Amino acid sequence: MSDVLAIDSLLSADELAVRERVRDFTEQRIRPGIAGWYEDGVFPLELAPELGELGVLGMHLKGYGCPGRSAVEYGLAALELEAGDSGIRTFVSVQGSLAMTAIHKWGSEEQKLQWLPRMAAGELIGCFALTEPTAGSDPGSMKTFARRDGTGDDAGWILDGAKRWIGLASVADVLVVWAMTDDGVHGFLVPAGTAGVTATPIGQKLSMRASIQCDVTFDGVRLGPEALLPAARGLRGPFSCLNEARYGIAWGAMGAARDSYQAALKYAQERLQFGRPLAGYQLTQEKLVNMLLEIQKGTLLALQLGRLKDAGKLRPEQISLGKLNNVREAITIAREARTILGGNGITLDYSPLRHAANLESVRTYEGTDEVHTLILGQHITGLAAFR
Amino acid sequence: MSDVLAIDSLLSADELAVRERVRDFTEQRIRPGIAGWYEDGVFPLELAPELGELGVLGMHLKGYGCPGRSAVEYGLAALELEAGDSGIRTFVSVQGSLAMTAIHKWGSEEQKLQWLPRMAAGELIGCFALTEPTAGSDPGSMKTFARRDGTGDDAGWILDGAKRWIGLASVADVLVVWAMTDDGVHGFLVPAGTAGVTATPIGQKLSMRASIQCDVTFDGVRLGPEALLPAARGLRGPFSCLNEARYGIAWGAMGAARDSYQAALKYAQERLQFGRPLAGYQLTQEKLVNMLLEIQKGTLLALQLGRLKDAGKLRPEQISLGKLNNVREAITIAREARTILGGNGITLDYSPLRHAANLESVRTYEGTDEVHTLILGQHITGLAAFR
Amino acid sequence: MSDVLAIDSLLSADELAVRERVRDFTEQRIRPGIAGWYEDGVFPLELAPELGELGVLGMHLKGYGCPGRSAVEYGLAALELEAGDSGIRTFVSVQGSLAMTAIHKWGSEEQKLQWLPRMAAGELIGCFALTEPTAGSDPGSMKTFARRDGTGDDAGWILDGAKRWIGLASVADVLVVWAMTDDGVHGFLVPAGTAGVTATPIGQKLSMRASIQCDVTFDGVRLGPEALLPAARGLRGPFSCLNEARYGIAWGAMGAARDSYQAALKYAQERLQFGRPLAGYQLTQEKLVNMLLEIQKGTLLALQLGRLKDAGKLRPEQISLGKLNNVREAITIAREARTILGGNGITLDYSPLRHAANLESVRTYEGTDEVHTLILGQHITGLAAFR
Amino acid sequence: MSDVLAIDSLLSADELAVRERVRDFTEQRIRPGIAGWYEDGVFPLELAPELGELGVLGMHLKGYGCPGRSAVEYGLAALELEAGDSGIRTFVSVQGSLAMTAIHKWGSEEQKLQWLPRMAAGELIGCFALTEPTAGSDPGSMKTFARRDGTGDDAGWILDGAKRWIGLASVADVLVVWAMTDDGVHGFLVPAGTAGVTATPIGQKLSMRASIQCDVTFDGVRLGPEALLPAARGLRGPFSCLNEARYGIAWGAMGAARDSYQAALKYAQERLQFGRPLAGYQLTQEKLVNMLLEIQKGTLLALQLGRLKDAGKLRPEQISLGKLNNVREAITIAREARTILGGNGITLDYSPLRHAANLESVRTYEGTDEVHTLILGQHITGLAAFR
Repeated sequence: MSDVLAIDSLLSADELAVRERVRDFTEQRIRPGIAGWYEDGVFPLELAPELGELGVLGMHLKGYGCPGRSAVEYGLAALELEAGDSGIRTFVSVQGSLAMTAIHKWGSEEQKLQWLPRMAAGELIGCFALTEPTAGSDPGSMKTFARRDGTGDDAGWILDGAKRWIGLASVADVLVVWAMTDDGVHGFLVPAGTAGVTATPIGQKLSMRASIQCDVTFDGVRLGPEALLPAARGLRGPFSCLNEARYGIAWGAMGAARDSYQAALKYAQERLQFGRPLAGYQLTQEKLVNMLLEIQKGTLLALQLGRLKDAGKLRPEQISLGKLNNVREAITIAREARTILGGNGITLDYSPLRHAANLESVRTYEGTDEVHTLILGQHITGLAAFR
Repeated sequence: MSDVLAIDSLLSADELAVRERVRDFTEQRIRPGIAGWYEDGVFPLELAPELGELGVLGMHLKGYGCPGRSAVEYGLAALELEAGDSGIRTFVSVQGSLAMTAIHKWGSEEQKLQWLPRMAAGELIGCFALTEPTAGSDPGSMKTFARRDGTGDDAGWILDGAKRWIGLASVADVLVVWAMTDDGVHGFLVPAGTAGVTATPIGQKLSMRASIQCDVTFDGVRLGPEALLPAARGLRGPFSCLNEARYGIAWGAMGAARDSYQAALKYAQERLQFGRPLAGYQLTQEKLVNMLLEIQKGTLLALQLGRLKDAGKLRPEQISLGKLNNVREAITIAREARTILGGNGITLDYSPLRHAANLESVRTYEGTDEVHTLILGQHITGLAAFR
Repeated sequence: MSDVLAIDSLLSADELAVRERVRDFTEQRIRPGIAGWYEDGVFPLELAPELGELGVLGMHLKGYGCPGRSAVEYGLAALELEAGDSGIRTFVSVQGSLAMTAIHKWGSEEQKLQWLPRMAAGELIGCFALTEPTAGSDPGSMKTFARRDGTGDDAGWILDGAKRWIGLASVADVLVVWAMTDDGVHGFLVPAGTAGVTATPIGQKLSMRASIQCDVTFDGVRLGPEALLPAARGLRGPFSCLNEARYGIAWGAMGAARDSYQAALKYAQERLQFGRPLAGYQLTQEKLVNMLLEIQKGTLLALQLGRLKDAGKLRPEQISLGKLNNVREAITIAREARTILGGNGITLDYSPLRHAANLESVRTYEGTDEVHTLILGQHITGLAAFR
Repeated sequence: MSDVLAIDSLLSADELAVRERVRDFTEQRIRPGIAGWYEDGVFPLELAPELGELGVLGMHLKGYGCPGRSAVEYGLAALELEAGDSGIRTFVSVQGSLAMTAIHKWGSEEQKLQWLPRMAAGELIGCFALTEPTAGSDPGSMKTFARRDGTGDDAGWILDGAKRWIGLASVADVLVVWAMTDDGVHGFLVPAGTAGVTATPIGQKLSMRASIQCDVTFDGVRLGPEALLPAARGLRGPFSCLNEARYGIAWGAMGAARDSYQAALKYAQERLQFGRPLAGYQLTQEKLVNMLLEIQKGTLLALQLGRLKDAGKLRPEQISLGKLNNVREAITIAREARTILGGNGITLDYSPLRHAANLESVRTYEGTDEVHTLILGQHITGLAAFR
């Protein structure tokens, strides 16, 4: 009852099969443990190799041991994983859309061979250090700096600065770090354990508790010349990765929304009030219908993005539209689903309030509503209104 | 700048051509006159044969002189016409989706030959008399009654009752009238001028002023046996026509929305405030972006309905979803567009407030928000909450 | 059933008496004729002396034949008049809060004696010409200019320029005109019929059709020195009048809202659907409750403004808050009320859609939502974001 | 900057003094510890005697050692406490508005003397066991049953059943338990430790983590005749207490809202983006203004309830209106405040997301939005739509 518009009929057998496989994984490996992980504030690191085996790490990348699936398939996987928990989908995004994509797109052949196969397998974990403490929505004001260490071809780098909200940093094997240099923004691969790197998980979170975000500091970190991602220059480097991640988010958010809807629907059908199921009351039906309606529209939108991406035609403003809409609607849906659950809805026995809390993070990272609104505003009016 | 999602890329060359042709018609034949017609409360009857020539009357019907176009093509035409005015699109819906569809679907061969070719040409006008004064959302409580007049095969009928909100009735050449009989609901073809039939346009309207809706009374109207639509029995007869009309509305509403958006965007780009175009301010961009976003989603939704319809798979609850969403969003968009126009937005020089006013009618006819919400509510919960 | 919070208990006997008197006037003199005036686009000029007799013209002004009532009493009167029609309340605002206030506050003794008593009686009509065609929300960019005509004490003025959206200008006996001079903005009293003054009613309106707004042009208009309002200098002059008008609007809008609510409630109680009154359905009750709730809050807010005004403590940002909130909520309420009326709600037989249409004007004049939002934004943040 | 409407000017010196005292308490005793208590899921029991000393336990009750303050003073205290945390305010509500009010209103002289003074001092803790696992919004279907144990005057009771969402039950010294009997609903005072009583805190909560809610079971609990609250009969007993609590909630919610607003305003003023404070952008100002506006309206509304209560005229539907509106708006405000805080807003370093999460509980207990909507709907239409 959650595919009123027969959107499934637009999917190929292969796509449906991928979805089914990931959906099963979510049911069997995420749903049973998520309440505990969330309560305890623990990221289930043991899932990493299983997700690798499932084929969702660097899912859309080709070669170097990566699954090489289509954008739509990647989107469907993101949706099903986020039906489990945004934190798990975030891990997959950070690993695949951010860290692996950065290496795949901007790395040397050597770097790709070194990292990608084992990252695709979930044996190694990557993270993506772009955001800084004082500039969430303005990467251009980046203060982390890499200065040359020596001269000539074998000159290395000395890295200083601080990053914040860096997903998975404390458990990562490799950090993709973006830093200003005398020659503009560049990316670096920093192996975990390099002297001067400190990653501290941010605690006391009210969102994405089954995930890890860190404060990371770089204090005179010495890097060899091979640390540089040779092909990335300027903000286009990290931005192209952000667009990959945002694409996945537009799909993923619909997963959290659908799971919230289904939890509310099930509860409403089972819970009696004044002798009738909650689902039989007009006020409840109004909520359910409006939720489902937005899920359907958001899913059509995500699918259109996916088809464009697979055709090589997806543009940044289209991704902005998808991220803005789908996360915003998902959070509204999750909150509304919570109200149907009554008091029981405030516990981890039910998913909607957890999803709503998670989506606060999702709404913020990779561009807030305001950032995407103004990106689109500039696109349609030709006038920038950021400042 | 109104196709951010590249929805046009989903349309065939034929579909694009139909759209272009109807769009031209709207620009040349509707836009120049609409302010005057609206102010004066006049339906431009002279457009009927032109619309026939354009090929949009009974557009999706096959044979009997009808254009035989696809559901998607019909939808695109509805969208472009309603970008002109909901009243004109309503005429096309009443003529094609309601009156002609009723005859095409439930009429005898003789009835079809008699009426359809000249209706498709716009030479004859039809109307569809279902709604009654005291039962807008509940056709089951119909009071108009047709009793047998005589016995045997040549027994006719005597029709008594009243209908309300009957589009085009005062200018129609033929009325499709739904009435209760001893044998359940039946449809009748009543030629204009039949004794006892009175159609009075409803005046002092604040919506759809370039259209006609009538009170119609039937006072001992004698009909021959040939008046009966032989194949229609029960409410399934009129309901199947309503679904045709609702389908067109889901598309049409997006036309009113798009036209409102474009009017607001153009104004915002040209109008200076504090020396900068309105379109350069954050508060204006936020409005424009949210409008466009819903237009894109609603158009994707309409297209999905169209593809399902052309595949013979469109179901009533899907149409409900489309009608509910697209009209509701269109009215929000038109209202928001008005605010961008400032004081100038309250005149007929600009379309958004006219569209917003029109959509009040569109929102109500063929099922209010509440009716479609509860249809969908029943579909997803399995529980009826109408009463 | 529209005073759930017992707000009446906060009103004095005098206040209740004023309200009752104006409410009676509305029932007997506005309600019976409003549909016709609105349809025909006619302002009922004959009401002017009756409103004078009712004591609502320049109601809060003291001396010079003015009623000298309290701010709360004026507010209650505005509310009851706008329950009839925003256009009638607008006349009272233009006459009393704008034109008469300008003369009362900034005029010479002679000017006051000449104009105020007969304006209070409704024998003479005033208007207030501030807004210009290209600068609705930015009076500082005013282009209408008055240059000195001659030198010395008896030097007059020559006035050139254009104004737009000037209420009542075509029927006014005197125009209060604000113009730039070499010495900043000044106000002038321009008697109707002065050579070079042209006032043309704006036609084809979709809002406030029972009211008049004009384009006014000044083409080399020669004025004597006595035309100058001696005490007004700079934009503080017209702005102080705008604040008076905005105060009245905050009250008035609640009148349109209450009348819409009451119309919808009555209809919902009388209209049966599936054999039960509409008012007995959850979806209808939800609408009615949310309407009433906002009416109650808006009325409390207006009353607080009134008490502050009577205490001499009302500040511009407080008025902005009241105007912003109360008009915005009123328009939402009127629109929602319309939906309860079904198809019948689109005719002038019922007030909500007329109120909703009127409020489009009210929302725009005397400061749009955006203007008041940014006034308040500056107040609370200390930072101007207008540009 | 959070009292734009000068609501403070409506408060007496005594009222302002109470507010100041409680505000100080919140700053010094709640704010410093709340993040830790919330993260750890701990209710700071040590605050109970301090709250007693502050004079906020049973604050509005007279005699028996209770503070005997006015309803407005109690409301102001609730607001300031909830600016700290809804969980702390909830303790005060459960203790004073529910448990102590039940004893004060329906208890014997002996019961009052036994419990009230030490409860007012915060030395003993009470709870209020009404809600059952399967009937949150329908106390009439209560299944907990008390049957007579013996006959004659000294016959006691045997209590069986289960309650859920019972605040403070696991730390309470006395439980006010509502149970069905052969003679309708009655209330009982059950001392902690009575055999057969089990109170289990509900874990894994995403809301009100610095508070306690329990599942409570009664398994053949034997009570003496003195356990009965003699004066309470029927649902009017518990309902009168619920109304007391709802009254306090209407005030309290505005505290959570104001604190969220202030946190967002402060952050927006300090946080730079593109070199300008966030607070200087239109999109941020729009959010702040709309938050403040609703806080002002909600506070005016709460004050009106308080004045009516102190005048002995407060009616249940008025309380429903206040609870419905103020909690609904507060949650919207807290959520919006969170978005201004960016990523930082998901940690316990900032209050808005904690408030938003807490308010999910507050929105549900003591009547959901739907329950209060339908109470008000019945009041204004005369028709019940609950079933």
